[in-house]
Amino acid sequence: MAQASSPSQLLDPVAFAAELIRCPSVTPEEGGALDLLQARLEALGFTCTRLPFSEEGTPDVDNLYARIGTEGPNFCFAGHTDVVPVGDEAAWSADPFGGEIKDGVLFGRGATDMKSAIAAFAAAAARVLKEGAPKGSISFLITGDEEGPAVNGTQKMLDWCAAHGEVIDDCLVGEPTNPRALGDMIKIGRRGSVNGWLTAYGAQGHVAYPHLADNPVPRMAAMLSALAALKLDEGTEHFQPSNLEITTVDVGNTATNVIPAEVRAHFNIRFNDLQTAEGLEVLVRGVLDKVCDEMGGSYDLLFKKSGDAFLTAPGRLSDIVAGAVEKVTGRVPELSTSGGTSDARFIKNHARVIEFGLVSQSMHKVDEHIAVKDIEQLTDIYEAVLRSYFGT
Amino acid sequence: MAQASSPSQLLDPVAFAAELIRCPSVTPEEGGALDLLQARLEALGFTCTRLPFSEEGTPDVDNLYARIGTEGPNFCFAGHTDVVPVGDEAAWSADPFGGEIKDGVLFGRGATDMKSAIAAFAAAAARVLKEGAPKGSISFLITGDEEGPAVNGTQKMLDWCAAHGEVIDDCLVGEPTNPRALGDMIKIGRRGSVNGWLTAYGAQGHVAYPHLADNPVPRMAAMLSALAALKLDEGTEHFQPSNLEITTVDVGNTATNVIPAEVRAHFNIRFNDLQTAEGLEVLVRGVLDKVCDEMGGSYDLLFKKSGDAFLTAPGRLSDIVAGAVEKVTGRVPELSTSGGTSDARFIKNHARVIEFGLVSQSMHKVDEHIAVKDIEQLTDIYEAVLRSYFGT
Repeated sequence: MAQASSPSQLLDPVAFAAELIRCPSVTPEEGGALDLLQARLEALGFTCTRLPFSEEGTPDVDNLYARIGTEGPNFCFAGHTDVVPVGDEAAWSADPFGGEIKDGVLFGRGATDMKSAIAAFAAAAARVLKEGAPKGSISFLITGDEEGPAVNGTQKMLDWCAAHGEVIDDCLVGEPTNPRALGDMIKIGRRGSVNGWLTAYGAQGHVAYPHLADNPVPRMAAMLSALAALKLDEGTEHFQPSNLEITTVDVGNTATNVIPAEVRAHFNIRFNDLQTAEGLEVLVRGVLDKVCDEMGGSYDLLFKKSGDAFLTAPGRLSDIVAGAVEKVTGRVPELSTSGGTSDARFIKNHARVIEFGLVSQSMHKVDEHIAVKDIEQLTDIYEAVLRSYFGT
Repeated sequence: MAQASSPSQLLDPVAFAAELIRCPSVTPEEGGALDLLQARLEALGFTCTRLPFSEEGTPDVDNLYARIGTEGPNFCFAGHTDVVPVGDEAAWSADPFGGEIKDGVLFGRGATDMKSAIAAFAAAAARVLKEGAPKGSISFLITGDEEGPAVNGTQKMLDWCAAHGEVIDDCLVGEPTNPRALGDMIKIGRRGSVNGWLTAYGAQGHVAYPHLADNPVPRMAAMLSALAALKLDEGTEHFQPSNLEITTVDVGNTATNVIPAEVRAHFNIRFNDLQTAEGLEVLVRGVLDKVCDEMGGSYDLLFKKSGDAFLTAPGRLSDIVAGAVEKVTGRVPELSTSGGTSDARFIKNHARVIEFGLVSQSMHKVDEHIAVKDIEQLTDIYEAVLRSYFGT
């Protein structure tokens, strides 16, 4: 499976990022990316374990855990080699899997999210290891299922780690965290997320005979207005206010003279650590019950958590990463909890975890790209993190 | 086109109704029904004019205008030979086009709506004409496009009448008007109807970054709540209150993490003669503007009238029909303006018009049927109407 590699090949993060981009690893395809990474890490002395997982109803996914050193503390870099689909290939100005560099910019799917960050951390580790083994371990937790259902990836790898005595002390997730420029932002936590699927029921009938029907749409409108008006909290020192968004409401009735029997809606809540999924469900049901008490009718609600809020309180880990960022870029990064979810929501149950990577602007878009200089600076930052962490 | 017929064949309304049912005249098919009716009426002495109409984008439709007499007043029976589709044929217990009589009940598509009423009026006319020509004219305005788009039917026939000096003084529409038993209800007017197609606009985005998006769903919910809460009027002596029903609201977004860019809804207003379509549009736009003033965003509204409200005030025509109903059935019919629209919405611009026909319970359903006794009583009622109208 592994290809012959030499330790020095890892020292150029830009060339390695381009090589990784040339592996067409659209989820759930491994695409040669994990093989390539494993070969390079083994050449450097890492012990690599491939962790393929499968589960009924989801695609099979391959993953890689790599570690050098047997002692603690274990500093882990977490990320993924899988990428989102190309999208409108005709709209790309470069081959999405070409790894082409034009005018100091590396183009390709995964350039930002997040093959270049993997290459940067591998290069940083290679630089540190050239001077001897640090007091502790360096590891890679690399999944091929971050952009997919996330069922056969990080969660199962962490279970495997726990079952095999693999303790991770601190973890740096290499997702793109900077809105505009490298050094803008470190993520020290993430909001939680819940989804609600709501159905309001009535009785079908003809618009000319409303007394023989029971239109559920006005009740749904009142429910959605009440949900949209909820002020969940004011936010915290580290978190923005929790927020509910209604993403769809649908009847699907094409007859202009028919009162429908039901209407369905979906909403999503991103919530901070003042809230829990369980508490939000009680709150939402109270709002819906009140509308039905006033207007009659009934509803069904399926309420499902996809991630809890978490915070790695500012401390040694964030100090180390923020210090490295400032040293290399001259910027004082914001310690943020904004944005979507990431695999850090799983890791936080096993280790202290924060996130720092490249600039997010072109991720998932046509012509995904990153400045070569950013990859080089990120390598310097990751190297400074490792040196600071291990005191070398 | 016309088949040989004798005047006496019209005297049995039940047999003639069964013959009409055997003509498979699902809109827009003529199915032989107009041919059969024309042959019978010509045998009785009527002058028949076929009025086929066509218009780009709608099916061609055949229609029949028949008149006996040249003087006024012209008493017209209006109706249609077209029928709605069979629906689930396997669920029928009789051939939908068999015209079968079982235990005193005639089965078939059109038994109620409204081939049997045409047969009843033809038989009533034949009985009256047997005793000589009345002082005035009797006419039939029969379309094949009542259950379809209603574009190439009654409206164009009335235009033709106006263009050819065919004056109709009083018109009886033979639609099923009785909710439960023959004699329950005469319709002396109809509510108007308007349709509104509403779109609320926002800006698409990710649920985790609501400040970068503009969710139109809460605004649509507020608009729909405001529309549903409108109290248009309290009704009148002859009309129930005007009423708005929302029939659908749709986004069609299947992504749980995406704030949508727009949401669409449809509503229908059934309104009495206190309202006009134009006045309702002003009112509705005022409600929607107020929501956008408060919540921002923009909307589009397509507002389209499908019929004005009208009332043929109680008077000689309703007295004649109500008297005939009471004489035959012993029931005092309610003079109502309830229910959906009918072709009377077009006729009211040309003549005094009221509606009385069979019991509506099985119309448009599987196993459409009518009691033979009801057809016979309806014939007696129509005969009494003609005798009272012409003073014979």
